[in-house]
Amino acid sequence: MLADAQHLDNQDALKSMRAAFALPPGIIYLDGNSLGPLPIVARERALEVTAGQWGTDLITSWNKHQWIDLPIICGEQIAPIIGAGPDQVVCCDSISVNLFKVLSAALAMQGDRKKVITTEDNFPTDIYTVEGLQGQLGPDRCELIKVAEEDIEHSLDDSVAVLLVTQVNFRSGKMLDMQALTKAAHKKGIMVVWDLAHSAGAVPVELDAYYADFAVGCTYKYLNGGPGAPAFIYVAKRHQAHFQQPLSGWMGHAAPFAFDNRYVPAQSIRQNLSGTPPVLSMSVLNAALTLWADIDMAHVRAKSVALSEFFLAALKNLGLDDELRCIAPLIAGERGSQLAFRHAHSYAICQAWIDAGVIADFRAPDILRIGFAPLYLSFTDLWQACEKLKEVMEKKAYLGEKYQRKLAVT
Amino acid sequence: MLADAQHLDNQDALKSMRAAFALPPGIIYLDGNSLGPLPIVARERALEVTAGQWGTDLITSWNKHQWIDLPIICGEQIAPIIGAGPDQVVCCDSISVNLFKVLSAALAMQGDRKKVITTEDNFPTDIYTVEGLQGQLGPDRCELIKVAEEDIEHSLDDSVAVLLVTQVNFRSGKMLDMQALTKAAHKKGIMVVWDLAHSAGAVPVELDAYYADFAVGCTYKYLNGGPGAPAFIYVAKRHQAHFQQPLSGWMGHAAPFAFDNRYVPAQSIRQNLSGTPPVLSMSVLNAALTLWADIDMAHVRAKSVALSEFFLAALKNLGLDDELRCIAPLIAGERGSQLAFRHAHSYAICQAWIDAGVIADFRAPDILRIGFAPLYLSFTDLWQACEKLKEVMEKKAYLGEKYQRKLAVT
Repeated sequence: MLADAQHLDNQDALKSMRAAFALPPGIIYLDGNSLGPLPIVARERALEVTAGQWGTDLITSWNKHQWIDLPIICGEQIAPIIGAGPDQVVCCDSISVNLFKVLSAALAMQGDRKKVITTEDNFPTDIYTVEGLQGQLGPDRCELIKVAEEDIEHSLDDSVAVLLVTQVNFRSGKMLDMQALTKAAHKKGIMVVWDLAHSAGAVPVELDAYYADFAVGCTYKYLNGGPGAPAFIYVAKRHQAHFQQPLSGWMGHAAPFAFDNRYVPAQSIRQNLSGTPPVLSMSVLNAALTLWADIDMAHVRAKSVALSEFFLAALKNLGLDDELRCIAPLIAGERGSQLAFRHAHSYAICQAWIDAGVIADFRAPDILRIGFAPLYLSFTDLWQACEKLKEVMEKKAYLGEKYQRKLAVT
Repeated sequence: MLADAQHLDNQDALKSMRAAFALPPGIIYLDGNSLGPLPIVARERALEVTAGQWGTDLITSWNKHQWIDLPIICGEQIAPIIGAGPDQVVCCDSISVNLFKVLSAALAMQGDRKKVITTEDNFPTDIYTVEGLQGQLGPDRCELIKVAEEDIEHSLDDSVAVLLVTQVNFRSGKMLDMQALTKAAHKKGIMVVWDLAHSAGAVPVELDAYYADFAVGCTYKYLNGGPGAPAFIYVAKRHQAHFQQPLSGWMGHAAPFAFDNRYVPAQSIRQNLSGTPPVLSMSVLNAALTLWADIDMAHVRAKSVALSEFFLAALKNLGLDDELRCIAPLIAGERGSQLAFRHAHSYAICQAWIDAGVIADFRAPDILRIGFAPLYLSFTDLWQACEKLKEVMEKKAYLGEKYQRKLAVT
């Protein structure tokens, strides 16, 4: 299949993008769904923002180098990637903190309705945030209801305030139908919060076209913004005049530099800013996002699907498809840009594969997760990765003591 | 007074620290109370964490380079600077977000009491955060009461839940008596949240000795952690078992990597972590904090007082003390590490002074604010700065069109 891989690489519409990344030699990186690799412009920006801006221009950099505008600038860079028009996306805080903001605001906009529905296998922070809000407001004002993914639609009735769903499941890679679910929820007067952690930069998202209400998302996975880079938040224009989030820090004030002693919320997406943003991280993110300026998300999706299909075919070709049970949907249109496999020794296999030069990741309890990032992965990478996996599986190297389970990290 | 300045510089116990900073040539920086300058180790770390860690070791850096431990490591570096024993300080989010966490948790620990007292000229974000919480919980569960600084003690009675105070006023530089106020509040069963934004690294703070409850603070001012570097939060050990903050993100779970779908809060300072931290910013902060390892806060305070006293004397010597009305306490023991002056043209004066190579800052409506950072400022710097100010004032250069007011930033 090496020849097939090389043929696909030659035809790849995105192949020129690989040169934009500082990929470590000898490593095949299948974990861009957890932490994207370093774009070369991001490396340059890290030095520039530190030595050239902070070091040289000190406090004056807030205006001179537009630090004060970074949350808005980065938000506008992300907007087209997720199908959002201007003035609806801002970059700030973490997904967890942003979820708290939108959930609080959405719940407050729903009057007496108190139910928040989410999926039982949603990413933990999504569930935990509703629990936190429920603990704070009390069960008479916020009630968490967890349902199975397949039961979401049945659970929507006119007693529900908010539906909180992640488009692409972090374990299985299963992708929900955002347009259909949003429509079904709206029919019952329910507001929907979409978590785009595994979507932004990976699959086409059309927030405005789907008439979405709110969304949050991550910039350090497919958007390659750097470890723990600030998250983003989307509030549809039509909601901004009624939206009031409780983390009312000074940066979200209508006039932050008036230092007024009464909070007047900015009635714009800026209201979601709370404290002073981490400029070094956000400036590096700003540089990383420049890579997306001319990217067509249709190309990204087409290559993503081709990569994961090729990977499945390669596993089959190498006789690994029985032992590694795929739990991602086998229909490409129903999954995001990842695959997930179950194996009793997933953790150890993942470690032994890393030793062989292929970085994927493990998710408790027994999942080997493989991300396909179309901007820098080649089909040849995948073939080589599968050949190495074949070696790991055949020699059962993963049973060795050194691959025993330790702490793993997202 | 130049000879006096040189004499003081020769005797300076902290003079060797200046070499640890990358100070831009030809600039005298009196704004370290807004954004500390670049430590050389921080510049090196920015490159290392970007190219050397993220770029080379990718996702494995979470364990290999201890990214996962950075919030705790930085917290333990800050602890001795603010008089805190181990396991009580963690680095995360912004002051605004951290205030929301501690205020929510403290209020919940206070049963039926709902009043939160703060000062009417507190830093806006402190006031706004209480307003945000009041808006979210409703006035029957959270009631903001603003009092004048001099009325704090009178306002404390047993109907009050929480006292939220900033030790050093961001405008005037006035320093409150932390020990006395904490004691007075405790007598009435009130919990106290201290905002140490203008204290940490500037004045001695003894949280444990004062029997403090909670504190938050900033790392990008006197601690030189970089623009918007993550803030910190202190929760006294005795409160940690009963403390529950509502921003229950996955990093604050007792076992974050179990990916459990029910939130079990870490009953430790780690519970204050919410989402994934901005690693680039926090790693640079970690490097900047190494400068404090052998610093004696008594030396810092002694030099801080000497610097501000010298500055006042220099203004007097140059005949500027009438025109620039000092609103900071004239008794050194009653102020933090800054001075503040009122002038109708403060904004323009600040801009003209910047053009002359001296960076101070302006705070609305009419305040010229000068910070004294003992780690890198010399007495000779101050004398030269005052001489340049004299020129600005004499020539009235500040009346020129180019110094008209634009946006200023903290």
